Amino acid sequence: MSSFLGRCFHIATWGESHGGGVGVVIDGCPPRIPLAEEQIQRELNRRRPGQSEIVTPRDEADECEILSGVFEGVTLGSPIAILVRNKDARPAAYEEMATKYRPSHADYTYDAKYGVRNWQGGGRASARETIGRVAAAAVARQVLNALAPGIEVLAWVSSIQDLEANVDPESINSEQIEDNIVRTGDPSKVEEMISLIKKARSEGNSLGGTIEAVVRGCPPGLGEPVFDKLEAELAKAMMSLPATKGFEIGSGFKGTLLTGKEHNDHFYMEDSRVRTQTNHSGGIQGGISNGEPILFRVAFKPTATIMTEQATVSNTGSDTELKGRGRHDPCVLPRAVPMIEAMTTLVLCDHLLRHRAQCGEVSAASQ
Amino acid sequence: MSSFLGRCFHIATWGESHGGGVGVVIDGCPPRIPLAEEQIQRELNRRRPGQSEIVTPRDEADECEILSGVFEGVTLGSPIAILVRNKDARPAAYEEMATKYRPSHADYTYDAKYGVRNWQGGGRASARETIGRVAAAAVARQVLNALAPGIEVLAWVSSIQDLEANVDPESINSEQIEDNIVRTGDPSKVEEMISLIKKARSEGNSLGGTIEAVVRGCPPGLGEPVFDKLEAELAKAMMSLPATKGFEIGSGFKGTLLTGKEHNDHFYMEDSRVRTQTNHSGGIQGGISNGEPILFRVAFKPTATIMTEQATVSNTGSDTELKGRGRHDPCVLPRAVPMIEAMTTLVLCDHLLRHRAQCGEVSAASQ
Amino acid sequence: MSSFLGRCFHIATWGESHGGGVGVVIDGCPPRIPLAEEQIQRELNRRRPGQSEIVTPRDEADECEILSGVFEGVTLGSPIAILVRNKDARPAAYEEMATKYRPSHADYTYDAKYGVRNWQGGGRASARETIGRVAAAAVARQVLNALAPGIEVLAWVSSIQDLEANVDPESINSEQIEDNIVRTGDPSKVEEMISLIKKARSEGNSLGGTIEAVVRGCPPGLGEPVFDKLEAELAKAMMSLPATKGFEIGSGFKGTLLTGKEHNDHFYMEDSRVRTQTNHSGGIQGGISNGEPILFRVAFKPTATIMTEQATVSNTGSDTELKGRGRHDPCVLPRAVPMIEAMTTLVLCDHLLRHRAQCGEVSAASQ
Amino acid sequence: MSSFLGRCFHIATWGESHGGGVGVVIDGCPPRIPLAEEQIQRELNRRRPGQSEIVTPRDEADECEILSGVFEGVTLGSPIAILVRNKDARPAAYEEMATKYRPSHADYTYDAKYGVRNWQGGGRASARETIGRVAAAAVARQVLNALAPGIEVLAWVSSIQDLEANVDPESINSEQIEDNIVRTGDPSKVEEMISLIKKARSEGNSLGGTIEAVVRGCPPGLGEPVFDKLEAELAKAMMSLPATKGFEIGSGFKGTLLTGKEHNDHFYMEDSRVRTQTNHSGGIQGGISNGEPILFRVAFKPTATIMTEQATVSNTGSDTELKGRGRHDPCVLPRAVPMIEAMTTLVLCDHLLRHRAQCGEVSAASQ
Repeated sequence: MSSFLGRCFHIATWGESHGGGVGVVIDGCPPRIPLAEEQIQRELNRRRPGQSEIVTPRDEADECEILSGVFEGVTLGSPIAILVRNKDARPAAYEEMATKYRPSHADYTYDAKYGVRNWQGGGRASARETIGRVAAAAVARQVLNALAPGIEVLAWVSSIQDLEANVDPESINSEQIEDNIVRTGDPSKVEEMISLIKKARSEGNSLGGTIEAVVRGCPPGLGEPVFDKLEAELAKAMMSLPATKGFEIGSGFKGTLLTGKEHNDHFYMEDSRVRTQTNHSGGIQGGISNGEPILFRVAFKPTATIMTEQATVSNTGSDTELKGRGRHDPCVLPRAVPMIEAMTTLVLCDHLLRHRAQCGEVSAASQ
Repeated sequence: MSSFLGRCFHIATWGESHGGGVGVVIDGCPPRIPLAEEQIQRELNRRRPGQSEIVTPRDEADECEILSGVFEGVTLGSPIAILVRNKDARPAAYEEMATKYRPSHADYTYDAKYGVRNWQGGGRASARETIGRVAAAAVARQVLNALAPGIEVLAWVSSIQDLEANVDPESINSEQIEDNIVRTGDPSKVEEMISLIKKARSEGNSLGGTIEAVVRGCPPGLGEPVFDKLEAELAKAMMSLPATKGFEIGSGFKGTLLTGKEHNDHFYMEDSRVRTQTNHSGGIQGGISNGEPILFRVAFKPTATIMTEQATVSNTGSDTELKGRGRHDPCVLPRAVPMIEAMTTLVLCDHLLRHRAQCGEVSAASQ
Repeated sequence: MSSFLGRCFHIATWGESHGGGVGVVIDGCPPRIPLAEEQIQRELNRRRPGQSEIVTPRDEADECEILSGVFEGVTLGSPIAILVRNKDARPAAYEEMATKYRPSHADYTYDAKYGVRNWQGGGRASARETIGRVAAAAVARQVLNALAPGIEVLAWVSSIQDLEANVDPESINSEQIEDNIVRTGDPSKVEEMISLIKKARSEGNSLGGTIEAVVRGCPPGLGEPVFDKLEAELAKAMMSLPATKGFEIGSGFKGTLLTGKEHNDHFYMEDSRVRTQTNHSGGIQGGISNGEPILFRVAFKPTATIMTEQATVSNTGSDTELKGRGRHDPCVLPRAVPMIEAMTTLVLCDHLLRHRAQCGEVSAASQ
Repeated sequence: MSSFLGRCFHIATWGESHGGGVGVVIDGCPPRIPLAEEQIQRELNRRRPGQSEIVTPRDEADECEILSGVFEGVTLGSPIAILVRNKDARPAAYEEMATKYRPSHADYTYDAKYGVRNWQGGGRASARETIGRVAAAAVARQVLNALAPGIEVLAWVSSIQDLEANVDPESINSEQIEDNIVRTGDPSKVEEMISLIKKARSEGNSLGGTIEAVVRGCPPGLGEPVFDKLEAELAKAMMSLPATKGFEIGSGFKGTLLTGKEHNDHFYMEDSRVRTQTNHSGGIQGGISNGEPILFRVAFKPTATIMTEQATVSNTGSDTELKGRGRHDPCVLPRAVPMIEAMTTLVLCDHLLRHRAQCGEVSAASQ
């Protein structure tokens, strides 16, 4: 297991789908940052189950408790521990999974690696695990607000199966994303996306899609070559989320079709600021942010749990069949939007502090 | 800067394009592993400049010297330092870049972050930086040979611009890849790819493309959820290479078009081994290898340096123009193949050792 | 803050003296290790306040709850979160400390570093912080029991002020230490030590002393030169405990008075095992355990909190006076014994796993 | 092996006594720091063999070469690689050690751990290994000069065997230490110390002693509780040096004899600065520097290599005898002085950068 992330804003998450709860410890958070449980709860509410008719009906309020590291409304610089109890656990629904491996789930590989597995729900491989990430990111967001307030992080559903949204990353805002239960930024596609998801669920099936994200107002200078280039850190952060299958930055895979003459982003001066005419680079060059919007896209596979009989094997090595049970999202995309934003925020916050360590304040060094 | 990678097989690379040289220190390498300079040199030769008519003509033998950590032909368990001197440096060719930022290069962002930059060649952002990675991976390969000899790592050029190769990852072998200077695995596309690259160079232009990779014979059990899932670690490793724009594993972005019923990989028993009918998962489930071939694809942008006048800005903030000079690859893909293999090997070796730490020998725990 | 420790057995502690509680997250614990709350509680009881008449009367049961990482009585390999609530908090007793710095406490330096401080009790600098360490070590002890069952870790009070105990590290056992409230291993000194501590308390004063520790049955091969030598890791672990002022291994400071001829430990064969005639090395040579008992000693200063008026300054920069209040140990040594054992166990467990990563199973490699 | 140190100022050392050389890679060094080889060479000269009549006669100039990370006289922010070649190697002198373990050396434990060993000289366990540390610290010193110029680090020999120097840490300066070949700060003891060492050598014997160190001008606020307290980091750094047996800070072991009333350091205001009347704390409280001089002491055992026949065992497990050969220091203390200063400087530099990461500039946060 490796459940810690970040060199300077160091987080350690814990918890299984069924058990005492889930949570996170944050070490290295700057002191004197205003922080209240409400700020964390707001983000947890965006990822919680039961929030709409197209997500899992598991009924969890996901109420958070800050156990340490905050005093009289500000951070102390000491570790911040956040706890969310599991409430609506129904282990009985998973008994068959104790001995049968769900296809395209982590059941078999956890057994292969650890020789033991909490078969109630997804165990550690459950999406509940991301609660600790989202909570930590809400704290990281407060740090950014204090140290680099101009940084905006937004994500939205850019496609469900082959249905694509049309969104302008320069102007999209959080209200546009949050005002629909799919969390797409294109109002013209909302109804169709909802229908698609409902249809999949009614057929005992599931869907995947893509999420797009933008970071606006990121100062130039974040990211640490050669291994911790900003896009490398973002790629790892995104690909560590459940159900992700791909990551691309800027021009991405389509950029391979262009020639150098077409792809290069020419520089120009806008007042005293260095800008680029195009942004195929996606806001990062040589692993370091260049001040342009950071743009990337993440692919999510269709949910592995489907309400359909499937061929599989047992943990004693015999062929068998298994039908999905329990409560699940027919499409993880709507709830994955806050997760993508959370991972982005965590990476930026860590790199902001890392930049201070090596180069001093961002404002002094690079703006 | 963050030029170290790996928790247990810990490497620290160093060096600029122009200067004393480039190299790597490897800490944590298991002892008693047979190791000779020839094994490292073989891999360095695959990435070195001047190796064919479609790569940069910079004339570097890239001869390596093992400075420590090896005694009487085997590793000692102590740090292995490897040095490659820079020989054919021509700083004069870069003088204009001292004050002008090359579009889509790291010139501007390095200045923005560090306030200083070695403008001779690409400095630390040069692809020469990858020599340390390739050398370290040659050592990691020896570790795999000793501890998990069945693991095969292969990469090949799967597309140049829109010209796609047709390769079967189950059967492709290294001879097929190495017998052509493009390093594609599809003999029917070799000539066309070479022509495409030569044409781009003759026009002062450049091309991108994709590289595909497979890991065959990987035991189940490698990878550490939740943050260091095997695909997350691979994604970071690949996206830390120069010029990469995207990463996808298994079904990748195309997998988002499938439904759960189509996408799920059903398990079955093959003798006493758990197998899957399909491999949309790309050999990894829940962040842990499942014993199927690990399959992924990486996007490379067209080389930023082109022999064409381009608009840009100076380091004093005025608009200007710059024409590419120096010696460059019109297409980085052929030389990137050994880099992709190297990064894959480094990730696998680190995770093999990490698995031993937590779970004991791979053979005992998971085969 | 840096509240995480260990490369492979990675722990992150959290919590302040007054607040939601204290605890720890353990990442990297091997799977399938038997673990129950009772095993943790037993160790917490040894360090808890109110356990005897010579320690602080603060009334805390320090009951622990395992929140994750354990299923059906064994570890899962996933993070183990352990929570202990603060119960008997009395912030009112500390109000004067909100503005006045207690001499030889961390009040001033926390303010100097973080610009903010939880003045209720010792905040993060309280000895309550060690609950997370002791809980994590109880888990580490279970790991040692499974992977290297012969390793015994024992500590005892070897002096209070100038009153020294006479203990044979080869034969001392835990019953001898636990059967007296001072936790010395010399029954002839128990009453005198208790009297000394009671006298100090009655005078509003406090005492320091030394704790000695032995590791018996440690296999040769643990420790990682050059920076993570076993004695260096032990030194750091001990010096990170509150109130410690010194660490010495084997012959220690007294060894500087010997010549090389006197100090060298001659090797001899005992059956097929390499032994040393003397043990000035303290069981570690070149940073690696040699199979002899590991022997070290730790100095603890007298408790800083005394019930006496002392000169100090306020947080607004004026000279003032302050008299100790709250509930405190007149001598931390008796309760520090389990802490020393805990830190030793954590270091050994981490290095056992690290050894497996680089060199394979301890049994195969070095016994 | 664990040959890297420091979270933000991250160094990786490499090299054996006999072989290609020794060196270091520094990652995370701030950019734009003036750096020349002369600054590194000066420190290497202070630790090099052959520098006086009381140290080993091995004839090494220890000339360093900066291979990367520096351009036009300043650091680039990229990794700084420094190389020192081994020149005067005489492996023949060590042939007997290929099969016999030197008492109190690392020969046996390296074999026990790694199953292989470079028996030429001390291999990785040789004091030559510290060249990388001293070189890295010379760079760290330049960083301190730029970012916290008031910090002075001084160490001196405070005792040889039972002969103690009398030195005032508040006023001692580097000229007083460097003007004698023992590197003690007490001129009245120089001749006697030299005689003692020469006598030991002439008898084929060796001596140990203690080194004392002071950090003056350290700003309040450095150090990271709870595990990376400044004294814990210093303890680890010192105990990772060859031949060290003990570490104490401030009042140290003698402080255990005092009561709380005697030991507490009372605060008072000196102009606008918080000071303490006494300094039993040794400049660190709660793991964080308080602005007073940091004072600590390190114990070194007598050199293990003595020119005397000693009982030992062979690597095939039979009792035998061995007489020391090769060229060695009869007393490591004089050459250990720059090593102690180096390790101190490395810890301070790392914590200065870590402090910037979490709390911002030291000047803003705590002065």
